[in-house]
Amino acid sequence: MNRRRLCILGATGSVGRSTLDLVARAPDRFDVLAVVGHRDAIGLAAAARQVGARRAVIADDACRPALTEALTGSGVEVASGDAAVMDAAGGGADWTMAAIVGSAGLAPTMQALAGGRTVALANKEALVSAGDVMTAAARASGATLLPVDSEHNALFQCFDHARPERVRRMTLTASGGPFRALSRDQMRAVTPREAVAHPNWSMGAKISVDSATLMNKGLELIEAFHLFPLRADQLDAVIHPQSVIHGLVDYVDGSVLAQLGPADMRVPIAHALAWPDRMATPAQPLDLVALGRLDFEAIDEARFPAFALARQALEKGGAAPAILNAANEIAVAAFLDGRLAFLDIATISGETLARFDPPPPASLEAVLAIDTEAREIARSKLKRFAA
Amino acid sequence: MNRRRLCILGATGSVGRSTLDLVARAPDRFDVLAVVGHRDAIGLAAAARQVGARRAVIADDACRPALTEALTGSGVEVASGDAAVMDAAGGGADWTMAAIVGSAGLAPTMQALAGGRTVALANKEALVSAGDVMTAAARASGATLLPVDSEHNALFQCFDHARPERVRRMTLTASGGPFRALSRDQMRAVTPREAVAHPNWSMGAKISVDSATLMNKGLELIEAFHLFPLRADQLDAVIHPQSVIHGLVDYVDGSVLAQLGPADMRVPIAHALAWPDRMATPAQPLDLVALGRLDFEAIDEARFPAFALARQALEKGGAAPAILNAANEIAVAAFLDGRLAFLDIATISGETLARFDPPPPASLEAVLAIDTEAREIARSKLKRFAA
Repeated sequence: MNRRRLCILGATGSVGRSTLDLVARAPDRFDVLAVVGHRDAIGLAAAARQVGARRAVIADDACRPALTEALTGSGVEVASGDAAVMDAAGGGADWTMAAIVGSAGLAPTMQALAGGRTVALANKEALVSAGDVMTAAARASGATLLPVDSEHNALFQCFDHARPERVRRMTLTASGGPFRALSRDQMRAVTPREAVAHPNWSMGAKISVDSATLMNKGLELIEAFHLFPLRADQLDAVIHPQSVIHGLVDYVDGSVLAQLGPADMRVPIAHALAWPDRMATPAQPLDLVALGRLDFEAIDEARFPAFALARQALEKGGAAPAILNAANEIAVAAFLDGRLAFLDIATISGETLARFDPPPPASLEAVLAIDTEAREIARSKLKRFAA
Repeated sequence: MNRRRLCILGATGSVGRSTLDLVARAPDRFDVLAVVGHRDAIGLAAAARQVGARRAVIADDACRPALTEALTGSGVEVASGDAAVMDAAGGGADWTMAAIVGSAGLAPTMQALAGGRTVALANKEALVSAGDVMTAAARASGATLLPVDSEHNALFQCFDHARPERVRRMTLTASGGPFRALSRDQMRAVTPREAVAHPNWSMGAKISVDSATLMNKGLELIEAFHLFPLRADQLDAVIHPQSVIHGLVDYVDGSVLAQLGPADMRVPIAHALAWPDRMATPAQPLDLVALGRLDFEAIDEARFPAFALARQALEKGGAAPAILNAANEIAVAAFLDGRLAFLDIATISGETLARFDPPPPASLEAVLAIDTEAREIARSKLKRFAA
């Protein structure tokens, strides 16, 4: 078997580190051309040594000396700056992990897609804000997009890619977050500390809040729309507090295929790393008897208006998802800073979506311009609110 | 698309009728070469007319006049007798439904396998009693065996047939039957009427009792062993009272793929009929929210010794599964007749298995001889018991 040549964009983040952990466990299968980080020189140097990467690239030029020093004697080539990041992303890897978070990840992801090989996608913005642009780039180059998010990876595993017309519906599961059982009145007073206490996964603060508002699940519907050749009305989500089933695909014959797994990101990452083959992981095997039961309930859009907003943005298409995503980021940051009440996250997002209606973006630059303007609008609205 | 040419063995039984129902809904996809029944001439004639079969074959020569009369003017060719059944099974169909129940189904199933095409298997004995013989015949002719049983069909849908070495375990689900929550003491007094009240599926009396003892689930492990290239210790079963998840396949990376569906045999039959494509069925779509919850518990082999016996037979291999199956049939018949207590079904089966140890059968004739002798032994043991 030829070794798969990898490029890891975002090597020092959570997904990047899990990827490296798996690569280090199967050195015969992989050859790491480049690891790319933002500012964590020590972390990036450790990553490069862990997998014997040929090159380590740090985006922030100011961190280059620290990286060079940390890699002394390793034989790892060092580079820095945005151009070097783009070089690494376009460096001809067979497989690229696109795990640079936020809008900074968009251009390198596009660059990787242009190479026409396989891109494992962990950056949410790529499909939420720039879905049409990204999927057009993948089609143009013949690149394969593999989703790393546990829900989309689950759907990918269950989807009959040769016969998408035989799929009736797809369902993503949502844990329901920490406020699943709260009334709208009870949600008025919730604090950032309560919002970031996710029941099943340990995640960053921003995505934990998105999980508490269910905006995250709504944005995931938008991602699913771009990943799979289905209509928006074929996509749905269901609350499943144990987060054991990650996604379900209903076929026209009544069969439903589902992927289940432990709350361990190494499972979907390993799937993407080895696909179409599989590789071993140290993830704890699923034990249904120990779990005892799996529960399901409908999403209440009255209590979780952010989910309804994301659905609207999905149905509208064009610039709407980028606007919603940008406004939500501003609102969540304000909530985490104590400047906005929890319920007003959706209010700000909804008002921004209603107010701004640019034409569909046809390029990454257009997406970024919409993102910037939507953030401005959301920020201007913040002034009316006080937490 | 070329129409798939079908032969339906067991057309008047439950699986056969569900198959015909689906075929009649998609007349452009199928061309029915033959429908085969045992003694129900009126039912067989209706089946032949329903799908425009070219030929109707009834095993019992005495029923031929009734069949001929019922098909007057239909243009359907009529035949009867065992040789005509074998002719139909070997008649060059692209796809054969092997749904003749009991040992009567074995020879026609072998005949269909010899044709080297696709055989959808609904006859349990084929794999339980004659597993090695059947799979050797399939290998020799290049035939594809598609399981129709909901659990095995689920596993088939989730199994990566190109990479069986990446599968860690497979799990079949069991409803647990009507006595799931009873103690061994409480089981002493259960009646045939209580035993045949299956919670999720409407089934015949024999298989309902097997479901109540969990012998059915143990025999299904044996079937799974023959259908998939795994070791016996990679196969397991779990109690899942709602019978919504039918089977699960664990991969080495920690992913578990599962098939879910309503309790409607048309779902797995449609899968087999259309495979590798899919076809629409009128089955009610699965609604997880309406279900609310799915439960799981371990099988208690102390309360369900029949399951443990089947596991032993699986591990031993050779003639053991055929002996167990034969002894169990005698014991279940005696229980249904009121001549044996529920708990003694496993006793009889276990004693027969312990007493009789012939060499592994290498032909269908050897399987049938073992079956006959095991029944004799089980019958002789019955005398010791009184219900």
